[in-house]
Amino acid sequence: MSGFVPFETLDENKISANQSRNLHQPIPREAALDMLFQHIQPIGTETVSTESALGRVLSEDVYAPVNLPPFNRSPLDGYAVRANDIAGAAPDNPVVLEINREITLENVGQSKLGKNQAAAIMTGSPFPSGADVVIKLEDVKKTDNKKIRIFSSLPAFSNYCFAGEDIQKGELVLDKGSVIDPTSVGILAGLGLSTVAVYRVPKVVIAGNGSELVNVHGQLKPGQVFDSNSYSIAAYVQKLGASPIYAGTTGDSTEMISRKISEKIKTADMVIMTGGVSVGSRDLVKEALLLLGAKILFHRIAMRPGSPALGAVKDGKLIICLSGNQSAAFVTFHLLALPVLAKLMGIEAQQLIGTTAVLYNDYPKASKLRNFLRGRAFFDNGTLKVKISGKQNPGMIHSTLYCNALIDVPAKTPYLEAGEQVDILLLHMPGLHPDWLPG
Amino acid sequence: MSGFVPFETLDENKISANQSRNLHQPIPREAALDMLFQHIQPIGTETVSTESALGRVLSEDVYAPVNLPPFNRSPLDGYAVRANDIAGAAPDNPVVLEINREITLENVGQSKLGKNQAAAIMTGSPFPSGADVVIKLEDVKKTDNKKIRIFSSLPAFSNYCFAGEDIQKGELVLDKGSVIDPTSVGILAGLGLSTVAVYRVPKVVIAGNGSELVNVHGQLKPGQVFDSNSYSIAAYVQKLGASPIYAGTTGDSTEMISRKISEKIKTADMVIMTGGVSVGSRDLVKEALLLLGAKILFHRIAMRPGSPALGAVKDGKLIICLSGNQSAAFVTFHLLALPVLAKLMGIEAQQLIGTTAVLYNDYPKASKLRNFLRGRAFFDNGTLKVKISGKQNPGMIHSTLYCNALIDVPAKTPYLEAGEQVDILLLHMPGLHPDWLPG
Repeated sequence: MSGFVPFETLDENKISANQSRNLHQPIPREAALDMLFQHIQPIGTETVSTESALGRVLSEDVYAPVNLPPFNRSPLDGYAVRANDIAGAAPDNPVVLEINREITLENVGQSKLGKNQAAAIMTGSPFPSGADVVIKLEDVKKTDNKKIRIFSSLPAFSNYCFAGEDIQKGELVLDKGSVIDPTSVGILAGLGLSTVAVYRVPKVVIAGNGSELVNVHGQLKPGQVFDSNSYSIAAYVQKLGASPIYAGTTGDSTEMISRKISEKIKTADMVIMTGGVSVGSRDLVKEALLLLGAKILFHRIAMRPGSPALGAVKDGKLIICLSGNQSAAFVTFHLLALPVLAKLMGIEAQQLIGTTAVLYNDYPKASKLRNFLRGRAFFDNGTLKVKISGKQNPGMIHSTLYCNALIDVPAKTPYLEAGEQVDILLLHMPGLHPDWLPG
Repeated sequence: MSGFVPFETLDENKISANQSRNLHQPIPREAALDMLFQHIQPIGTETVSTESALGRVLSEDVYAPVNLPPFNRSPLDGYAVRANDIAGAAPDNPVVLEINREITLENVGQSKLGKNQAAAIMTGSPFPSGADVVIKLEDVKKTDNKKIRIFSSLPAFSNYCFAGEDIQKGELVLDKGSVIDPTSVGILAGLGLSTVAVYRVPKVVIAGNGSELVNVHGQLKPGQVFDSNSYSIAAYVQKLGASPIYAGTTGDSTEMISRKISEKIKTADMVIMTGGVSVGSRDLVKEALLLLGAKILFHRIAMRPGSPALGAVKDGKLIICLSGNQSAAFVTFHLLALPVLAKLMGIEAQQLIGTTAVLYNDYPKASKLRNFLRGRAFFDNGTLKVKISGKQNPGMIHSTLYCNALIDVPAKTPYLEAGEQVDILLLHMPGLHPDWLPG
């Protein structure tokens, strides 16, 4: 609903006139996404401390500046010895070694172990030079404080961790364009990297169009509803790691919408709006964008729900306008806006992960157009299943609650039956789960 | 590694004495978790604005205070009419209705439609009383500005959205203990709820024990390594939505560790430490906790890696100490600390989600104890597979990078073969994905 426009604009002649202005016929979602992707401008970079890097996107590959472990070290508590010295050791023929008392746990890494000597060593301690094996504490008998007896031999470099065997100096550790997860934070710290180069956090302006919308702190007049799309979209933007700016609801005139976008776009990197893009009603948003001098990339995509989606660009910044129907906004936000935002953020894995799943319940309705049903994917003994979640009307919000998958139903599908294989897109945020990709 | 302790403590007699002090024999991970769960104290609640509620945990069930939609409304643009009036309409027998020009888009919800009348209505607009069906704009011919012709009948309540058909007033919408996701934020806003009751964010003190540890901003001396566990654990705590407090590295004396815990625990809700809990070496942490007057719940769990894990409680606050080996810390953090933190946060779905998966590669080594291998789960045409990721030494960090699953290998398993079915635990944060549960 694009606001209470005068009745006169609702006759069929005006609608036809409007439709003839649609230079951009419905295009597949993938084509729309491609057009949007082509207009994404590179975002700047900055340096942040490793402690504050969680969720940021790496703007450079990270190579290990040092070896991990940094030195040859012991994997357990015991005695460092020379494998040659204990070569003949057996239960009935123990080898006796002298404890080198000058080697302490503090200086063990800078010490040299002589022939037929042993030095106490702990888990993680560096090897003294000359030593090439560690005998477990439990496998050693001390004769006094000067000598130990060893009852079995071990090949050289047993119980031996080599410098760099975990991560080698110069090795590519973290990829440019990956989102820094908790483990990555730990690896950066472990490599002694106290700062990291990341992409700037983009600012995303979010607005709801239509004078029937009231923000959650306002009071409803008759016929009005609370804006929910702006709040959920702002939260999705925040969860992905970008910075949402709620611009409130816009009025019902092209001038007001145009002015609002024109003001907000100056300090923002992208705009996401809902409502006012329907073709059947007066498409105020499109007119507002044309008034602003924005270039319309497409208007309408060949899918349900949410076909009246619009993409535009103004001063190199993308403006994505989605249907105001809540489920339609939910679906097209995930299919169009989220991948674009991910790419803008510098995230390499922008696309939602697709796979097949077994349908859990029937869907008796026909899908004339390509139809993205809201579903809930779950594991059933290692098999991915998907349940269509509740009523699928585009204007209903309930099916989006705990929805974690979109079922991609091809055009002209008469119905779906429980047990059949369907294509799904997983709605976990792109970039945050590169690990779910095959291989 | 628990720091450079004097050599004298490392002989076998002292070790035996130490082991006899272990009142707590190795217990299964599940039993350890139960003991920890029993000591979790309820955390307080607070009220936050809906805009800032993302990631917070609901401390009360949320019931819909209003209907959604709030009124009977039109799902499309067209004319609201009475079904009875158009009962006989057909292409060759159109029904002519008078447009009620007193009904405007502003007052339509408060208007009454008379017999044989029609009123313009837009998507989302409330029905005028008396009207019970909407005729699509495309299906109507206007004869002049006063009358329309309709060419087919429709049953009453066609193209009619009932108040409350999406969410009914009084309906349970969001459950206590669920994490507020972006869709929930939108639903709260849509219901006109500008604030929401949530659990307080717990403060979690994180420290690394051992004088060989240096924080990322420090300089390594010979034999020292950078602390990585504290940074990754802090990031996991932050990602789950709690507040991490990095307490730095502790020295190598029981007094220093004891003093540090005693200071920090006053303002915190929970403590997570790594290092110094090994049984083979001098278990400084256990002694420090006893010095502090903490109650030890268990020390050692029957699993690999990370068996020397310790749980304690002091002044009603839990202290969890994990092995300093990075992979061991990673595994036990997920298996012990994360579920406890989730429960402390009030999250209802505390447990990692378990399922089966098809093993992608061989694992030729025997697992004497129950063994949690680091793996990467992925979908292969709807089948969940899991790949063992790299070297599985407990002291190596690399296998934890992009690890999203732990493979739960039973004790006494001689080897694993590619293609066999294995039990896995998915490492996505608990609570954030209640939707991945079956059903």
